[in-house]
Order: sequence, then C-alpha cells, then structure tokens
Amino acid sequence: MVENYAIGVDIGGTNTAYGLVNKEGKVLFSNGMKTAAYNDFEDYIDSLSQRILSMMERVGIEQVMGIGVGAPNGNFYTGEIVDAANLNWKGKLPIAQLLSDKLGKKVTVTNDANAAAIGEMKYGVAKGMKDFIMVTLGTGVGSGFVSNGQLIYGHDGFAGELGHVIAVRDGRSCGCGRNGCMETYCSATGIVRTAKEWLATTNNETVLRKEEKLSAYAIQQAAQSGDYVALELYDFTAKILGQTLADAVAITAPEAIIFFGGLAHAGDILLTPTRKYFEENVLSMYKNRVAFKISSLMNENAGIVGASALAWE
Amino acid sequence: MVENYAIGVDIGGTNTAYGLVNKEGKVLFSNGMKTAAYNDFEDYIDSLSQRILSMMERVGIEQVMGIGVGAPNGNFYTGEIVDAANLNWKGKLPIAQLLSDKLGKKVTVTNDANAAAIGEMKYGVAKGMKDFIMVTLGTGVGSGFVSNGQLIYGHDGFAGELGHVIAVRDGRSCGCGRNGCMETYCSATGIVRTAKEWLATTNNETVLRKEEKLSAYAIQQAAQSGDYVALELYDFTAKILGQTLADAVAITAPEAIIFFGGLAHAGDILLTPTRKYFEENVLSMYKNRVAFKISSLMNENAGIVGASALAWE
Repeated sequence: MVENYAIGVDIGGTNTAYGLVNKEGKVLFSNGMKTAAYNDFEDYIDSLSQRILSMMERVGIEQVMGIGVGAPNGNFYTGEIVDAANLNWKGKLPIAQLLSDKLGKKVTVTNDANAAAIGEMKYGVAKGMKDFIMVTLGTGVGSGFVSNGQLIYGHDGFAGELGHVIAVRDGRSCGCGRNGCMETYCSATGIVRTAKEWLATTNNETVLRKEEKLSAYAIQQAAQSGDYVALELYDFTAKILGQTLADAVAITAPEAIIFFGGLAHAGDILLTPTRKYFEENVLSMYKNRVAFKISSLMNENAGIVGASALAWE
Repeated sequence: MVENYAIGVDIGGTNTAYGLVNKEGKVLFSNGMKTAAYNDFEDYIDSLSQRILSMMERVGIEQVMGIGVGAPNGNFYTGEIVDAANLNWKGKLPIAQLLSDKLGKKVTVTNDANAAAIGEMKYGVAKGMKDFIMVTLGTGVGSGFVSNGQLIYGHDGFAGELGHVIAVRDGRSCGCGRNGCMETYCSATGIVRTAKEWLATTNNETVLRKEEKLSAYAIQQAAQSGDYVALELYDFTAKILGQTLADAVAITAPEAIIFFGGLAHAGDILLTPTRKYFEENVLSMYKNRVAFKISSLMNENAGIVGASALAWE
C-alpha cells in the first residue's frame, strides 16, 4: 500500500483549518473549527482528532502518510506547543503525542512560518531551492530559514524568530516584553500602528482619515489608489524590513526571500521599496543576488498545504 | 592504505601557516611563509605547493587524506578566493584547483572563520554540538554558523558575515563601504578605534594615555590591571557585541556561541559584560539557554588545525 495523502493542520488563535492533501499539494477536502471556542485543550484535541479521523476514512486510513501541524510556538523536536501568546492554553501542550495516540499516525509539529517554508519548498516558489528565507508578514512576523536544503530548527527547535530581531534600538514596545522588534513595524499590526501614529501627529491629507477602523487592508487599498500617505507608510515599513533582511542575508546568504501573509498581498507596493532599501543596506557581495518572491501558496489553504508538507519530510 | 593525516593551510594577509595534522587534531609539523612577499599568485602557489609536498613526503604522500585551506573570502563551493581585501592578488583565485593539480589531492577551501568553526566542531569545545555560532574577533570579525551539524555556506558560499551586520545605524564607516558594521566596534581594530575616540574627547585618567601605539592587547592588559577606562572600553564593545549576538540567536537558535581571536583572549573581561548585554537583549525563549565559550584551539596553530579539519569533511 502506498501512502498518497497527508493531513495538514493549521492552528491559529481564532481558527484551526485542516485538510487532506495529496502529494502534489492539492487540497482534496478541508474544513475548519474555532480554536478559541475550546477552553480545555483535551476537548480541543478530542474534537480535532475526530474530524481528522473522519476525513482520513474518506480515502482509507491506510492511505494517509501522516499528519503535519503548523502552530504558534510549535516545536519540531518535542512535538509540543509551548506558551503560545494567542492560544487559550498555556504551558507545554504535547499535541504530537496526543494526536498520534488517537490517530495511530506519525504527527510532526512546527511553527506556522516553518510550515510555510516547507510548503513553499515542496510545492511553491522555493521548489528546488536549498537556501532561502521565508518571511510571513501577518499579525506578527514569522520566518523560516532553509539552509543546505534543511529547515534551521536550532538547538531547541525555536529558531527563525526574525520578527523579534531588534530593528530599531529603543523602538516600539513589543508583546515579547522588549522594544524595537521588527514585527512591531513590519507586520499588518505594525503598519496600522505606524498609520495611527502618523494620523495623530500630522495633518497630511489622506483617505485613511475616513476609515473608522484602520486596517492593513485599508492601507493597501489606499496605496493602490495612489494615496500619498499610504504609499509613504509602505515606504517606511519597507525601509525597516529591507534593513533587517539585509542583515539576515549576511548570516545565511540565501538565493531568495519569499514573502507571505497579509502585508505581502500588497505585492510590488511593498516589495519595490523593500528591494530598494535592501540593496542600499546589504553587503556588496550579496547585491543583486537575492531574489524577492511572493509566495505562490497564498490562498485560504496555504496553512494546510504547508503543514501537510511536514508529513512527507 | 588508511589516510591518517591532513594538511591545513591558514592564509592570512601577512603570513601563511601550514602544517601536517593527524586525525586527533595534533599538529606534527608546521611552518610558515610570507603571503605578502609574493606579488604574483602563481609564484605563491608554486612555493606553497612545494612546501606542502615536502611535508607530505615526510609521512608518505599516500597517507595524506587531503588539504584544507582557510583563507579570507575563501569559497567552499568554487574553491576560489574572491577579492580578498588584504591580499595582494585581486579577482577570483582558483586556489583549490591550482593546488590540487600540483599535489594530486583533494583541496577544500573556506574562509578562516568557517574553518575555525569546523575545527572547533571536530577537535574543540564544539565537539558533539550540532547548532552553534563561531565568532572570530580579530582584525575584523568573522563568523561561522553551524546548524543541523552542518556549516551554513549559503547559496553562493559566502554566508556567515556577522561582522557586517549593521550594529549601529549610520554608525562608523567600514572598509566594506557601508556604515555601522559590527566589526567596526567589536574587533581588535574596533576597540582601538573606540579608545582613540574616547582619549581624544575625554580627560579621564587611564594608563592607555601612556601607550605610544595603542593596541587591543594594551587595552586588555590595562583592563586586567583594573584601569577604569579600559574596562569601560570592554563594556562598550560588549554591549554592541551582545546586542548583535542576541539578534543572531533569534535566527539560528544555537546551543553555544564560541569566541575566538585577539579580543577573545581577554576572557571574562569581554565575556562577562557580553553575556549581560546579550541576556538583556535576547528574546525570553533563549534567555540563559545559550552557552558562551572561549575556543579551546586558540594557539598559534589554530588556523592550521581548523583548516585541516576541512579535509576530513
């Protein structure tokens, strides 16, 4: 019997998406459940494993290779989720063990950005690449570093926290308790924070003043319609992003940086200035040698596909 | 016939050291020649290969596994030295090919910091480690990143330029043409630069004012004798080093950072404040989880031993 399918589970603070994925990265079935609705972690696991089981039964359990889980603070080595800021459950959650016990399949866990990197390497724009950086610009900033064709997990499985590189000394306060982390500027939340600061302290005309609840998407739309302040917001964000990436490249010398997540939907509006500041700040030996790419898996099932790729590793 | 020896060649701007090393990292013979005395690269290769040949003949050529070369801007993938700032010869120098043609042995090249990292992993304090950062604090700052037990060479073989991470935005001018690179502060040259700035702009009493030609070693001696200004110089240097390392750790999550080179000879005078600033600046998940170690190969033959380790890879 050949295993033809893998299960991908993408755990977010609000929703959990799960699906059955074939070897080409095609999602055959997918569904979701509310992560936040479960106060008890074991109830959550019970419900999730029942849903996965019924999905596996549709193709035949023996045809499923295994289960990959992308989760905030998911640890590849221990199979645990550890103190994830935006989940209801604290401490160490042995999710790989619990799911494996219930489903009789190998369960592999990592954080969402690492899962995205593996998905991109297996099915996306990083196919065939051995050295690249995956950057996920969502509510926060995640990253996955691939070197020599392998994900860098680090000694304890928590490598790749590019969002928490200090981009601005004594800069903005971050949820991690420190100041100036890159994600306080270069995430969807970060650009909104910049916008609010600017709107409060300047009088420049912009359609953004009309927004009741300012969002990264509203800023993107304003920039796409040529709003000057919105474009400057991208320029400011891109400067910090480009500087931080230039330093990261000096460490791992990738052939490409792949952008994923909310902010990346802006496409060239973000990438063109990021490229400019990156080239201005990068060591000469890396100039014009690092490709910038937008993820090709950026749809509603991206998290599922990325997580499922883990099961084939 | 079992190969029992490897040749290590450590190329510096002034001197080239070479030696015959056994599998335990013991140097059986070593010698040196003046790199700077050769204006023509082929003359240099002729002389070097004759010296290596006569060294190999002492144990029997067939007993030598191969030749490892650590050189500034040495590229593991291409076997070339490329535009090394402090060598007489510019452009791409195919040193692996040239030596291999003359000696009939496999020749492996990398930069000096990477060679030190491999040496440390094979014979030094990183034995058994799979994830660590090697930092060489010499005239400049070099680094070698090891993840999953492998050196990170990057896409084109030029990874690990931690010395050229921008530690201070719009900071000191660097030989690379940019500003604020970590090595302009945290190298032997950098601490002397700081000292000269301080001596010129303050009146604090210090034995350093008596030095005719200020050196990193003089600053180390002054600090060891309790000179307040010298200790403050280490504190200032350690702050920038600790901050930069904290950010690097967020990328590769190593179990240890290993310090090598001139500044590292200061031992705890450098490491104690570096540790303090590192812990203050690192993301909480890495706090108190990264060991700081001084290289155990820091003697006159370290470069030879490190380079020889390449030959066994």
